[in-house]
Amino acid sequence: MTSPDMDPDARESVAVAVQRALAQHGYERLTTAKIAEEYENSEAGLYYYFDTKDEMIAAFLDRAADYLSEDLLGVDADDPEAALRDACDFLFRTPEHDYAGIAVAIMELLSHAPYNETLRAPLLELETACLDALTDIVAAGVEQGVFRPVEPRATAAFLLAAADGSTGMAVALEMDVNDDLRQGWTAYVDSLVAEPTD
Amino acid sequence: MTSPDMDPDARESVAVAVQRALAQHGYERLTTAKIAEEYENSEAGLYYYFDTKDEMIAAFLDRAADYLSEDLLGVDADDPEAALRDACDFLFRTPEHDYAGIAVAIMELLSHAPYNETLRAPLLELETACLDALTDIVAAGVEQGVFRPVEPRATAAFLLAAADGSTGMAVALEMDVNDDLRQGWTAYVDSLVAEPTD
Repeated sequence: MTSPDMDPDARESVAVAVQRALAQHGYERLTTAKIAEEYENSEAGLYYYFDTKDEMIAAFLDRAADYLSEDLLGVDADDPEAALRDACDFLFRTPEHDYAGIAVAIMELLSHAPYNETLRAPLLELETACLDALTDIVAAGVEQGVFRPVEPRATAAFLLAAADGSTGMAVALEMDVNDDLRQGWTAYVDSLVAEPTD
Repeated sequence: MTSPDMDPDARESVAVAVQRALAQHGYERLTTAKIAEEYENSEAGLYYYFDTKDEMIAAFLDRAADYLSEDLLGVDADDPEAALRDACDFLFRTPEHDYAGIAVAIMELLSHAPYNETLRAPLLELETACLDALTDIVAAGVEQGVFRPVEPRATAAFLLAAADGSTGMAVALEMDVNDDLRQGWTAYVDSLVAEPTD
Protein backbone atom coordinates (compact mmCIF):
# COMPACT_ATOMS: atom_id res chain seq x y z
CA MET A 1 0.00 0.00 0.00
CA THR A 2 1.08 3.56 -0.56
CA SER A 3 2.38 5.45 2.39
CA PRO A 4 -0.24 7.90 3.67
CA ASP A 5 2.33 10.70 3.99
CA MET A 6 3.49 10.46 0.40
CA ASP A 7 3.40 13.77 -1.41
CA PRO A 8 0.30 13.95 -3.72
CA ASP A 9 2.41 15.04 -6.70
CA ALA A 10 4.77 12.13 -6.16
CA ARG A 11 1.79 9.71 -5.97
CA GLU A 12 0.49 11.13 -9.22
CA SER A 13 3.92 10.69 -10.83
CA VAL A 14 4.06 7.08 -9.66
CA ALA A 15 0.60 6.40 -11.09
CA VAL A 16 1.56 7.92 -14.43
CA ALA A 17 4.82 5.95 -14.55
CA VAL A 18 3.04 2.67 -13.75
CA GLN A 19 0.36 3.36 -16.35
CA ARG A 20 2.94 4.00 -19.07
CA ALA A 21 5.10 1.02 -18.16
CA LEU A 22 2.13 -1.34 -17.73
CA ALA A 23 0.53 -0.32 -21.03
CA GLN A 24 3.85 -0.93 -22.77
CA HIS A 25 5.09 -4.14 -21.13
CA GLY A 26 2.00 -5.80 -19.58
CA TYR A 27 2.08 -7.18 -16.06
CA GLU A 28 4.16 -10.33 -16.37
CA ARG A 29 7.16 -8.62 -17.97
CA LEU A 30 6.88 -5.48 -15.84
CA THR A 31 9.70 -4.79 -13.37
CA THR A 32 10.24 -2.03 -10.82
CA ALA A 33 13.17 -0.91 -13.00
CA LYS A 34 10.84 -0.43 -15.99
CA ILE A 35 8.49 1.66 -13.83
CA ALA A 36 11.47 3.67 -12.58
CA GLU A 37 12.43 4.39 -16.22
CA GLU A 38 9.06 6.11 -16.70
CA TYR A 39 9.20 7.90 -13.33
CA GLU A 40 10.02 11.56 -13.64
CA ASN A 41 11.19 12.15 -10.07
CA SER A 42 14.07 10.59 -8.17
CA GLU A 43 14.20 6.79 -8.36
CA ALA A 44 15.35 6.74 -4.75
CA GLY A 45 11.99 8.31 -3.81
CA LEU A 46 10.14 5.59 -5.70
CA TYR A 47 11.96 2.81 -3.91
CA TYR A 48 11.59 4.61 -0.58
CA TYR A 49 7.81 4.31 -0.75
CA PHE A 50 7.37 1.01 -2.61
CA ASP A 51 9.14 -2.32 -2.33
CA THR A 52 7.49 -4.27 -5.13
CA LYS A 53 5.91 -3.73 -8.54
CA ASP A 54 2.58 -4.91 -7.10
CA GLU A 55 2.63 -2.07 -4.54
CA MET A 56 3.36 0.43 -7.31
CA ILE A 57 0.52 -1.01 -9.40
CA ALA A 58 -1.82 -0.77 -6.41
CA ALA A 59 -1.01 2.95 -6.17
CA PHE A 60 -1.87 3.34 -9.86
CA LEU A 61 -5.15 1.42 -9.45
CA ASP A 62 -6.14 3.54 -6.43
CA ARG A 63 -5.70 6.68 -8.48
CA ALA A 64 -7.48 5.13 -11.48
CA ALA A 65 -10.51 4.34 -9.29
CA ASP A 66 -10.69 7.97 -8.16
CA TYR A 67 -10.15 9.24 -11.67
CA LEU A 68 -12.68 6.91 -13.30
CA SER A 69 -15.46 7.51 -10.82
CA GLU A 70 -14.87 11.28 -10.95
CA ASP A 71 -14.63 11.24 -14.72
CA LEU A 72 -17.64 8.97 -15.23
CA LEU A 73 -19.72 10.82 -12.68
CA GLY A 74 -18.30 14.16 -13.77
CA VAL A 75 -20.38 14.14 -16.94
CA ASP A 76 -23.58 16.15 -16.98
CA ALA A 77 -25.81 14.66 -14.27
CA ASP A 78 -28.73 16.66 -15.64
CA ASP A 79 -28.67 14.53 -18.78
CA PRO A 80 -28.39 10.85 -17.77
CA GLU A 81 -28.83 9.60 -21.34
CA ALA A 82 -25.88 11.66 -22.58
CA ALA A 83 -23.93 10.68 -19.47
CA LEU A 84 -24.48 6.98 -20.17
CA ARG A 85 -23.50 7.34 -23.84
CA ASP A 86 -20.35 9.25 -22.83
CA ALA A 87 -19.49 6.57 -20.28
CA CYS A 88 -19.91 3.80 -22.90
CA ASP A 89 -17.85 5.77 -25.37
CA PHE A 90 -15.09 5.89 -22.78
CA LEU A 91 -15.37 2.33 -21.45
CA PHE A 92 -15.67 0.39 -24.72
CA ARG A 93 -12.12 0.13 -26.03
CA THR A 94 -10.84 0.13 -29.57
CA PRO A 95 -7.20 -0.40 -30.56
CA GLU A 96 -6.93 3.36 -31.21
CA HIS A 97 -8.23 4.28 -27.75
CA ASP A 98 -5.74 6.15 -25.53
CA TYR A 99 -6.27 3.57 -22.83
CA ALA A 100 -6.22 0.49 -25.07
CA GLY A 101 -2.86 -0.75 -23.77
CA ILE A 102 -3.71 -0.19 -20.14
CA ALA A 103 -7.09 -1.92 -20.61
CA VAL A 104 -5.31 -5.08 -21.78
CA ALA A 105 -2.93 -4.83 -18.82
CA ILE A 106 -5.86 -4.46 -16.40
CA MET A 107 -7.39 -7.60 -17.93
CA GLU A 108 -4.09 -9.34 -17.13
CA LEU A 109 -4.13 -7.96 -13.57
CA LEU A 110 -7.73 -9.20 -13.14
CA SER A 111 -6.63 -12.70 -14.08
CA HIS A 112 -4.15 -12.59 -11.18
CA ALA A 113 -6.69 -11.25 -8.67
CA PRO A 114 -7.68 -14.71 -7.36
CA TYR A 115 -4.09 -15.37 -6.22
CA ASN A 116 -2.79 -11.88 -5.47
CA GLU A 117 -4.26 -9.93 -2.57
CA THR A 118 -2.10 -6.84 -3.19
CA LEU A 119 -3.72 -6.47 -6.62
CA ARG A 120 -7.15 -7.85 -5.73
CA ALA A 121 -8.19 -5.13 -3.27
CA PRO A 122 -7.48 -2.11 -5.51
CA LEU A 123 -8.90 -3.92 -8.58
CA LEU A 124 -12.10 -4.54 -6.64
CA GLU A 125 -12.15 -0.86 -5.67
CA LEU A 126 -11.67 0.18 -9.31
CA GLU A 127 -14.37 -2.12 -10.67
CA THR A 128 -16.77 -1.18 -7.88
CA ALA A 129 -16.17 2.53 -8.58
CA CYS A 130 -17.11 1.95 -12.25
CA LEU A 131 -20.17 -0.12 -11.35
CA ASP A 132 -21.38 2.43 -8.79
CA ALA A 133 -20.89 5.31 -11.22
CA LEU A 134 -22.86 3.57 -13.98
CA THR A 135 -25.55 2.50 -11.51
CA ASP A 136 -25.96 6.11 -10.37
CA ILE A 137 -26.33 7.31 -13.97
CA VAL A 138 -28.96 4.67 -14.78
CA ALA A 139 -30.79 5.32 -11.50
CA ALA A 140 -30.88 9.06 -12.23
CA GLY A 141 -32.28 8.32 -15.70
CA VAL A 142 -34.98 6.05 -14.32
CA GLU A 143 -35.86 8.58 -11.61
CA GLN A 144 -36.14 11.38 -14.17
CA GLY A 145 -38.25 9.22 -16.47
CA VAL A 146 -35.60 9.40 -19.20
CA PHE A 147 -35.08 5.62 -19.00
CA ARG A 148 -37.68 2.91 -18.66
CA PRO A 149 -38.02 1.55 -15.09
CA VAL A 150 -35.09 -0.87 -15.51
CA GLU A 151 -33.09 -2.24 -12.58
CA PRO A 152 -30.16 0.23 -12.35
CA ARG A 153 -27.54 -2.12 -10.90
CA ALA A 154 -28.37 -5.03 -13.22
CA THR A 155 -28.29 -2.68 -16.21
CA ALA A 156 -24.99 -1.15 -15.07
CA ALA A 157 -23.38 -4.54 -14.35
CA PHE A 158 -24.38 -5.91 -17.75
CA LEU A 159 -23.08 -2.82 -19.54
CA LEU A 160 -19.81 -2.76 -17.56
CA ALA A 161 -19.26 -6.46 -18.26
CA ALA A 162 -19.73 -5.77 -21.99
CA ALA A 163 -17.27 -2.87 -21.84
CA ASP A 164 -14.72 -4.99 -19.95
CA GLY A 165 -15.14 -7.85 -22.38
CA SER A 166 -14.69 -5.60 -25.39
CA THR A 167 -10.99 -5.26 -24.50
CA GLY A 168 -10.22 -8.91 -25.27
CA MET A 169 -12.11 -9.00 -28.56
CA ALA A 170 -11.42 -5.56 -29.96
CA VAL A 171 -8.00 -4.71 -28.53
CA ALA A 172 -6.10 -7.85 -27.54
CA LEU A 173 -7.26 -9.91 -30.53
CA GLU A 174 -7.89 -6.93 -32.84
CA MET A 175 -11.06 -8.61 -34.12
CA ASP A 176 -13.05 -6.57 -36.60
CA VAL A 177 -15.84 -5.89 -34.11
CA ASN A 178 -15.49 -2.20 -33.26
CA ASP A 179 -18.49 -1.14 -35.33
CA ASP A 180 -20.50 -4.15 -34.11
CA LEU A 181 -19.78 -3.36 -30.47
CA ARG A 182 -20.61 0.31 -30.92
CA GLN A 183 -23.84 -0.64 -32.68
CA GLY A 184 -24.53 -3.15 -29.90
CA TRP A 185 -24.15 -0.78 -26.96
CA THR A 186 -25.86 2.06 -28.82
CA ALA A 187 -28.90 -0.13 -29.49
CA TYR A 188 -28.84 -1.23 -25.85
CA VAL A 189 -28.83 2.34 -24.55
CA ASP A 190 -31.54 3.22 -27.12
CA SER A 191 -33.64 0.37 -25.70
CA LEU A 192 -33.36 1.87 -22.21
CA VAL A 193 -34.78 5.20 -23.29
CA ALA A 194 -38.42 5.61 -22.29
CA GLU A 195 -40.99 6.04 -25.05
CA PRO A 196 -42.16 9.65 -25.19
CA THR A 197 -45.58 10.04 -23.61
CA ASP A 198 -47.50 12.44 -25.80
CA MET B 1 1.07 -26.27 -33.50
CA THR B 2 -0.09 -29.81 -32.95
CA SER B 3 1.24 -32.44 -35.27
CA PRO B 4 -1.40 -33.45 -37.82
CA ASP B 5 -0.69 -37.15 -37.33
CA MET B 6 -1.28 -37.08 -33.60
CA ASP B 7 -3.77 -39.68 -32.42
CA PRO B 8 -7.21 -38.05 -31.74
CA ASP B 9 -7.44 -39.66 -28.30
CA ALA B 10 -4.00 -38.35 -27.40
CA ARG B 11 -4.98 -34.84 -28.58
CA GLU B 12 -8.08 -35.04 -26.41
CA SER B 13 -5.95 -36.13 -23.43
CA VAL B 14 -3.59 -33.21 -23.97
CA ALA B 15 -6.50 -30.77 -24.13
CA VAL B 16 -7.96 -32.15 -20.90
CA ALA B 17 -4.58 -32.02 -19.14
CA VAL B 18 -3.98 -28.41 -20.24
CA GLN B 19 -7.48 -27.39 -19.17
CA ARG B 20 -7.02 -28.87 -15.69
CA ALA B 21 -3.53 -27.45 -15.21
CA LEU B 22 -4.44 -24.03 -16.59
CA ALA B 23 -7.58 -23.72 -14.46
CA GLN B 24 -5.52 -24.61 -11.41
CA HIS B 25 -2.32 -22.63 -11.94
CA GLY B 26 -3.17 -19.88 -14.45
CA TYR B 27 -0.89 -19.16 -17.40
CA GLU B 28 2.09 -17.41 -15.84
CA ARG B 29 2.82 -20.16 -13.32
CA LEU B 30 2.01 -22.99 -15.72
CA THR B 31 4.87 -25.26 -16.79
CA THR B 32 5.03 -28.22 -19.16
CA ALA B 33 5.76 -30.35 -16.08
CA LYS B 34 2.45 -29.27 -14.49
CA ILE B 35 0.61 -30.18 -17.68
CA ALA B 36 2.44 -33.55 -17.74
CA GLU B 37 1.22 -34.20 -14.17
CA GLU B 38 -2.39 -33.99 -15.42
CA TYR B 39 -1.69 -36.00 -18.57
CA GLU B 40 -2.97 -39.54 -18.38
CA ASN B 41 -0.83 -41.04 -21.12
CA SER B 42 2.94 -41.33 -21.39
CA GLU B 43 4.82 -38.09 -20.71
CA ALA B 44 7.26 -39.06 -23.43
CA GLY B 45 4.36 -38.89 -25.91
CA LEU B 46 3.45 -35.40 -24.69
CA TYR B 47 6.96 -34.09 -25.19
CA TYR B 48 7.24 -35.87 -28.53
CA TYR B 49 4.48 -33.73 -29.99
CA PHE B 50 4.95 -30.44 -28.11
CA ASP B 51 8.03 -28.46 -27.21
CA THR B 52 6.51 -25.62 -25.17
CA LYS B 53 3.59 -24.92 -22.88
CA ASP B 54 2.24 -22.44 -25.46
CA GLU B 55 2.01 -25.22 -28.08
CA MET B 56 0.15 -27.41 -25.57
CA ILE B 57 -2.20 -24.52 -24.76
CA ALA B 58 -2.80 -23.94 -28.49
CA ALA B 59 -3.88 -27.59 -28.80
CA PHE B 60 -6.33 -27.05 -25.93
CA LEU B 61 -7.71 -23.85 -27.48
CA ASP B 62 -8.18 -25.57 -30.86
CA ARG B 63 -10.25 -28.26 -29.22
CA ALA B 64 -12.16 -25.68 -27.12
CA ALA B 65 -13.12 -23.78 -30.31
CA ASP B 66 -14.53 -26.98 -31.84
CA TYR B 67 -16.28 -27.91 -28.62
CA LEU B 68 -17.76 -24.46 -27.98
CA SER B 69 -19.08 -23.93 -31.49
CA GLU B 70 -20.52 -27.46 -31.59
CA ASP B 71 -21.95 -27.10 -28.11
CA LEU B 72 -23.36 -23.62 -28.70
CA LEU B 73 -24.72 -24.49 -32.12
CA GLY B 74 -25.76 -27.94 -30.96
CA VAL B 75 -28.67 -26.53 -29.00
CA ASP B 76 -32.10 -26.71 -30.60
CA ALA B 77 -31.93 -24.60 -33.77
CA ASP B 78 -35.72 -24.76 -34.02
CA ASP B 79 -35.99 -22.59 -30.93
CA PRO B 80 -33.53 -19.66 -31.27
CA GLU B 81 -34.80 -17.95 -28.12
CA ALA B 82 -34.11 -21.02 -25.98
CA ALA B 83 -30.80 -21.50 -27.79
CA LEU B 84 -29.72 -17.95 -26.96
CA ARG B 85 -30.74 -18.29 -23.31
CA ASP B 86 -28.86 -21.60 -23.07
CA ALA B 87 -25.78 -20.00 -24.65
CA CYS B 88 -25.90 -17.10 -22.16
CA ASP B 89 -26.38 -19.51 -19.30
CA PHE B 90 -23.22 -21.26 -20.43
CA LEU B 91 -21.11 -18.21 -21.32
CA PHE B 92 -21.81 -15.99 -18.29
CA ARG B 93 -19.56 -17.35 -15.54
CA THR B 94 -20.13 -17.55 -11.83
CA PRO B 95 -17.53 -18.73 -9.29
CA GLU B 96 -19.44 -22.04 -9.05
CA HIS B 97 -19.38 -22.62 -12.82
CA ASP B 98 -17.46 -25.74 -13.94
CA TYR B 99 -15.42 -23.56 -16.27
CA ALA B 100 -14.85 -20.65 -13.88
CA GLY B 101 -11.14 -21.37 -13.43
CA ILE B 102 -10.47 -21.87 -17.11
CA ALA B 103 -12.40 -18.68 -17.95
CA VAL B 104 -10.01 -16.66 -15.75
CA ALA B 105 -7.05 -18.39 -17.39
CA ILE B 106 -8.40 -17.59 -20.87
CA MET B 107 -8.68 -13.94 -19.80
CA GLU B 108 -4.98 -14.13 -18.86
CA LEU B 109 -4.14 -15.74 -22.22
CA LEU B 110 -6.07 -12.97 -24.02
CA SER B 111 -3.94 -10.36 -22.29
CA HIS B 112 -0.85 -12.02 -23.81
CA ALA B 113 -2.35 -12.23 -27.32
CA PRO B 114 -0.84 -8.93 -28.52
CA TYR B 115 2.69 -10.26 -27.90
CA ASN B 116 2.30 -13.99 -28.42
CA GLU B 117 1.47 -15.32 -31.88
CA THR B 118 1.34 -18.98 -30.75
CA LEU B 119 -1.55 -18.06 -28.44
CA ARG B 120 -3.09 -15.31 -30.55
CA ALA B 121 -4.14 -17.45 -33.54
CA PRO B 122 -6.06 -20.14 -31.59
CA LEU B 123 -7.57 -17.52 -29.24
CA LEU B 124 -8.85 -15.65 -32.28
CA GLU B 125 -10.25 -18.92 -33.61
CA LEU B 126 -11.99 -19.62 -30.28
CA GLU B 127 -13.49 -16.15 -29.95
CA THR B 128 -14.56 -16.12 -33.61
CA ALA B 129 -16.23 -19.53 -33.16
CA CYS B 130 -18.24 -18.14 -30.23
CA LEU B 131 -19.16 -14.97 -32.10
CA ASP B 132 -20.21 -16.89 -35.23
CA ALA B 133 -22.30 -19.32 -33.20
CA LEU B 134 -24.15 -16.52 -31.37
CA THR B 135 -24.58 -14.59 -34.62
CA ASP B 136 -26.18 -17.66 -36.25
CA ILE B 137 -28.59 -18.08 -33.33
CA VAL B 138 -29.65 -14.41 -33.43
CA ALA B 139 -29.94 -14.47 -37.24
CA ALA B 140 -32.14 -17.59 -37.07
CA GLY B 141 -34.33 -15.85 -34.49
CA VAL B 142 -34.68 -12.73 -36.63
CA GLU B 143 -35.40 -14.82 -39.73
CA GLN B 144 -38.09 -16.78 -37.91
CA GLY B 145 -39.64 -13.62 -36.51
CA VAL B 146 -38.89 -14.74 -32.94
CA PHE B 147 -36.58 -11.76 -32.44
CA ARG B 148 -37.06 -8.18 -33.54
CA PRO B 149 -35.13 -7.24 -36.71
CA VAL B 150 -31.90 -6.54 -34.78
CA GLU B 151 -28.45 -6.68 -36.37
CA PRO B 152 -27.34 -10.27 -35.60
CA ARG B 153 -23.58 -9.70 -35.47
CA ALA B 154 -23.79 -6.51 -33.40
CA THR B 155 -26.17 -8.20 -30.99
CA ALA B 156 -23.94 -11.27 -30.76
CA ALA B 157 -20.73 -9.22 -30.30
CA PHE B 158 -22.30 -7.13 -27.52
CA LEU B 159 -23.60 -10.22 -25.74
CA LEU B 160 -20.30 -12.11 -26.10
CA ALA B 161 -18.38 -9.10 -24.78
CA ALA B 162 -20.69 -9.02 -21.74
CA ALA B 163 -20.18 -12.74 -21.16
CA ASP B 164 -16.40 -12.38 -21.48
CA GLY B 165 -16.37 -9.40 -19.13
CA SER B 166 -18.45 -11.21 -16.53
CA THR B 167 -15.41 -13.41 -15.77
CA GLY B 168 -13.40 -10.54 -14.31
CA MET B 169 -16.20 -9.15 -12.17
CA ALA B 170 -17.98 -12.29 -11.04
CA VAL B 171 -15.17 -14.86 -10.94
CA ALA B 172 -11.76 -13.19 -10.62
CA LEU B 173 -12.95 -10.49 -8.19
CA GLU B 174 -15.88 -12.47 -6.77
CA MET B 175 -18.01 -9.32 -6.80
CA ASP B 176 -21.58 -9.82 -5.69
CA VAL B 177 -22.95 -9.35 -9.20
CA ASN B 178 -24.11 -12.82 -10.25
CA ASP B 179 -27.80 -12.01 -9.83
CA ASP B 180 -27.34 -8.59 -11.44
CA LEU B 181 -25.59 -10.06 -14.47
CA ARG B 182 -28.21 -12.78 -14.87
CA GLN B 183 -30.95 -10.17 -14.58
CA GLY B 184 -29.05 -7.98 -17.06
CA TRP B 185 -28.64 -10.58 -19.81
CA THR B 186 -32.12 -11.99 -19.24
CA ALA B 187 -33.64 -8.52 -19.69
CA TYR B 188 -31.48 -8.02 -22.78
CA VAL B 189 -32.66 -11.29 -24.37
CA ASP B 190 -36.24 -10.42 -23.36
CA SER B 191 -35.83 -7.10 -25.18
CA LEU B 192 -34.84 -8.94 -28.37
CA VAL B 193 -38.01 -11.01 -28.42
CA ALA B 194 -40.54 -9.71 -30.94
CA GLU B 195 -43.87 -8.48 -29.64
CA PRO B 196 -46.58 -11.02 -30.44
CA THR B 197 -48.67 -9.90 -33.40
CA ASP B 198 -52.25 -10.85 -32.58
